[in-house]
Formats: sequence, structure tokens, C-alpha cells
Amino acid sequence: MSETMRAVIITEPGGPEVLEVRSVPRPEPGPGDLLVRVSTSGVNRADLLQTRGSYPAPKGFPQEIPGLEYAGTVEAVGAGVRDWTPGAAAMGITGGGAYAEYVRVAADTAVPVPEGVAVDAAGAIPEVFFTAWDALVLQCALSAGETLLVHAVGSGVGTAAVQLARDLGARVLGTSRTPEKLERAVALGLDHAVPGDASWPARVMEITEGRGADVILDLVGGPYLAGNQRVLAPLGRQVVVGVPGGARAEIDLRALMGGRGTIRGTVLRARPASEKAALAARFTREVVPRFAAGALTPVVDRVFPAAEAPEAHRLVASNRTFGKVLLEW
Amino acid sequence: MSETMRAVIITEPGGPEVLEVRSVPRPEPGPGDLLVRVSTSGVNRADLLQTRGSYPAPKGFPQEIPGLEYAGTVEAVGAGVRDWTPGAAAMGITGGGAYAEYVRVAADTAVPVPEGVAVDAAGAIPEVFFTAWDALVLQCALSAGETLLVHAVGSGVGTAAVQLARDLGARVLGTSRTPEKLERAVALGLDHAVPGDASWPARVMEITEGRGADVILDLVGGPYLAGNQRVLAPLGRQVVVGVPGGARAEIDLRALMGGRGTIRGTVLRARPASEKAALAARFTREVVPRFAAGALTPVVDRVFPAAEAPEAHRLVASNRTFGKVLLEW
Repeated sequence: MSETMRAVIITEPGGPEVLEVRSVPRPEPGPGDLLVRVSTSGVNRADLLQTRGSYPAPKGFPQEIPGLEYAGTVEAVGAGVRDWTPGAAAMGITGGGAYAEYVRVAADTAVPVPEGVAVDAAGAIPEVFFTAWDALVLQCALSAGETLLVHAVGSGVGTAAVQLARDLGARVLGTSRTPEKLERAVALGLDHAVPGDASWPARVMEITEGRGADVILDLVGGPYLAGNQRVLAPLGRQVVVGVPGGARAEIDLRALMGGRGTIRGTVLRARPASEKAALAARFTREVVPRFAAGALTPVVDRVFPAAEAPEAHRLVASNRTFGKVLLEW
Repeated sequence: MSETMRAVIITEPGGPEVLEVRSVPRPEPGPGDLLVRVSTSGVNRADLLQTRGSYPAPKGFPQEIPGLEYAGTVEAVGAGVRDWTPGAAAMGITGGGAYAEYVRVAADTAVPVPEGVAVDAAGAIPEVFFTAWDALVLQCALSAGETLLVHAVGSGVGTAAVQLARDLGARVLGTSRTPEKLERAVALGLDHAVPGDASWPARVMEITEGRGADVILDLVGGPYLAGNQRVLAPLGRQVVVGVPGGARAEIDLRALMGGRGTIRGTVLRARPASEKAALAARFTREVVPRFAAGALTPVVDRVFPAAEAPEAHRLVASNRTFGKVLLEW
């Protein structure tokens, strides 16, 4: 008879209230897998959609246990795993199932918890730093001396982007509708705080002396597209990583041509395992040491006991957070 | 007193009828320049816009003489020019002034006329092959085994794209509303001819067995965006090089994210001289030899004497052409 564990379960499609801690079979690590005892797991907007039934987990991952990221301690390793041993502190992204005491993950997608970062705080790293680093560095080739504009700068991905861009030597402008979030982002390294009202495009052009932003990280979607096109510098790159504000918008293809601009969309969850492993390997080599060096830090808004997952979902839905909300076992 | 030459002049903003051959001062080659005796100059849609007064030439180029490309014979070289000598056959793109017996160009933007290509036919090469090669290879990294979709496949850029993609080892699908253009494109190497009616997206998905196109070269703009998004393969790249069909369209940012797609705009004319020189150098090394090898060929619809520039503009405006329309001196 298999062992059991506690997990946060989607008891039926619905709002935060359908989440309940139940006892379920504990997964076994197969060949190439790690079994990780979860310390914390970050709450993502995707989890809210999944709970409502509108964003199913990819095949091969638990459908009824949300959770796209984790930090914890390796409990057991599957056959053929060479780089990990029980007791090591690991973190990473996964297709689902991380709202649980134990999560089974592919060993080559796990990343070591950086030296100097507590394992419970590390739960705030994977999704947002993977997303922001992949988008800014690997996809948009943001480089020193360039200007980055981040919308929703107080979000998890926004707070990661500010730190990564500063560490690269880029100048960072960020928008938010909440003055307090802008203040906190400035404390994290944001160079120019831009109130997220209708005047933001004019303000961005003023700060950049008419040149605009070389890279735009868009976490909002539709309502910002017209303004983004207006402030995209020549040869600028815009990357869309979320569309909570709406997916559809009017694009001006002539402006895109004139500025020789690029708009790209990206998502981590749907990528094949081989790509996730390649990303984890590069992240381990290039980003993990920057945490150890003190240049990057996880930003935690609040930690909830796993049994309070409904409260955690409500807080994320409220848009009142700065950085990440975590569930703890 | 400076020498004179004949040139096609925009006598006032207006339709094709405002173009007249007049005698004007012949330019002198400054340091780093070539003076080229023009054999032929291609007619571009941009010339039609410029004639109407709605697309001014960049600074430093003649405003009243259209002409973005040329092929001819080097007549004289300016101070400091090492790679060119009088008598050499040259072709290239320029900011304007090529509708003339002589055109002054930066020597480092000129490209040798390929061996085996007549200098008058070479006038059909620069704009369309530079545009298609830059868009497909340098910007979209089209590679062997991938699938390219070209809209307006009978256009100058379309006919260049079909040949370039075939030569790279890519599979090429092309749309046109004119059955005869599709037939002629198949003779040039088009793998799949797709009638440009409302069913084209369904037909593209059928031909690609549900996968879609890895790269889409869009020469039409707005009306094709929804279909392009529907048929863009995962990690697909769409590049917009013209918007005669309209600049504005609704984009679905969620679909762009889900497919991890890219939409980019590009234009040659507005690029700084240094970029044009770099492009010419790579084109000389990588593309010119493919003409000499017989893998690529200029596609000429019709050659007009320069004095018939108004007729040539009318023909280009008619959309009845296959490949390029040239003016000859």
C-alpha cells in the first residue's frame, strides 16, 4: 500500500472556496525523477484559472492539485539521477502538483536553492525569475545601457524583472496604479516610477527624452498595446507574458514596420520537458550565482499555511500584493 | 558649370501623370561614393506613395527624383573608394534618386551584379531580394525543413522569397488571388499554391497537417493578421514588410503567448547607412553567388523606357504584375 501525503485539492471547479487539504497517495519518483518535500509553493494566477476549470494542467501532471513551482528538500531520487542526493535544497517549476507536501519533478528541471537564501523564501523564486530572465535575456536580448519598461511592476514577475535588469546594467522604468507599489519597487532598484494612469506613455517618452523603451515586459495585455507601440524605441522588443487585462487589442502594423519592432508572446508551462531542462541548466549557471552574490532577492508578500490556500488565492486575486504569495507546509 | 543628366522628376505631388523626364544637374561622387550610370531601376510601391507626396525620401537624398534601387555601370568613384573601379557592374538599394541616368550612392552599399546576370535584368534584384533575404534569413532564421507561407506570392518580394526559401531547403506555401500568378509561382519553385480567398487559413492547415507555418512573410497587412495568427506554428515568426491592405488589425495576444509566436515589422529604406552597408556586405557574400550558381533569378514583368514612367506606375498600381517592373535608360 502506497504512503499518503496532504495536498491542496480542487474539489470541484469553482472559486477559492473549492480548495481543501486532503490526504492523497504520495507520488513515487520514477527514473530521472526527484521526490521533493515541499517547504513552500508560490501561488500563481494560473492556479486561480486552473481552480475555476479554465486552465487544465498539461498531460502527465496532477489535474486536481494546483501548483507550478516549489522549493524544498530532496526526499528521494529515481533511477539514473546523478546530480541530486537526498537532503539537497531544490527549487523549480513544474506542470502542476506543487500544492502538496511532496511533489515529483523531473530532476533535470530542478535548480539548487542559492546559497544564502532560506529554502522557504526560495519558493518565491522559480516562476517569476525564470519567466522574467527567459523573457528579458534569452528572448529579448536586453543588454547593458538599454532601457526596460515593466508594466505591473509590483507583481512577482515585475519585481524579478526590475532586479534582473538592474543587475544587467539596464535602466528600468516601471508602471503601477498603486503609489505604494511604486515606492517599494524603487527600493528594489526601479530607476523611474511611472503612475499607471492614462498619462504613462507621455511620461515614458519624457523620461527617455523621446526615444522610448528598448524592451517592454508586458504583464497586463490588451489595454496597454497602443501605448506600448507608442513608446517602443527603434528596433524595440515587446514581450507579452500575461494578459489579465484582456487578450485582444488593435495593433498598428505600419508603426511596427516603421520602428522595426518585435512583439512576442511567451509561456513557460506548455514547453516540452527538454526545453524546461535546458532553461533550468542555464538558470543554474547564470542566475543562481547572482542570488548568492546578493544582487537578486526573492520578494515575498505573505506566507500562508497550506490549509489557508483559499485565503491565499483571494489575496492574489485582489491585486493588492507586492511580489509573491506562498503556501507553506 | 556642372554637367547635366536626364531624370524622372516629380513635378508636383500627384498621380503617375506628374512624372516627367527633365534635365537636371548630374551628381558628383563625394568621398566614399560611386557615381553609377543606371541601366535599369525598379519601380516600387514606395515610389507611388512618394509621388503622391505621402512618403518623403530620407534626408540627404533627392526629394524630387524617385527610385530606391538601381543596376548599372560604375562611371566614377569618389575619394577613398577601394573596392570599385569605373566600368564595374553594380546594383543596390539607395534612399532615392535612382530614376535617373546617373545615381550617386555610398560605395559600401553597392553589390556586384552576379556573374551570368545581365546588368539590365539585375535592376530587378536589389529591393526584393534584399528585403526577402533580410526578412527570412536574418530576422526570422528560416531554416531547412521549415515551412514558409508567403502572401502575395506573385509580387516582387514574393517571387524572391519563393526562390530564396527553396534554395535554403524550406517548403514554401504561397497565396494569391490570381490563378495565373499561382501557376507562374509554381514554375519558380512554389511547393503549394493556395488561392487567396477566405479559405486560405483552412487550406494552409490542411497542407501542413495541422501544424501551420514556421515563418510567414506578410506583404499585405491588416486583413491577413487573423488568419496568420491562426496558421502560425508553435515558435513561429511572422514578419510584416508591407501593409497595402491596411495597417490596423485586431491581434490576439493570448494566442501569441500560447504559440510562443513573434510578429515583427521591418523596413529597409529608413535604416542608417552603416546597417545598409553591413547588409550589402553579407548579401554579396551569401546571396550573390547563388545567382551565379543558377539557384536564383531576377523576375521581370516588364521593362519601360524611362520616359514612360507614368505607364510603369500605373501598371504597378494595377496589381496585375508578376515580379518586377523596371525603367530603362
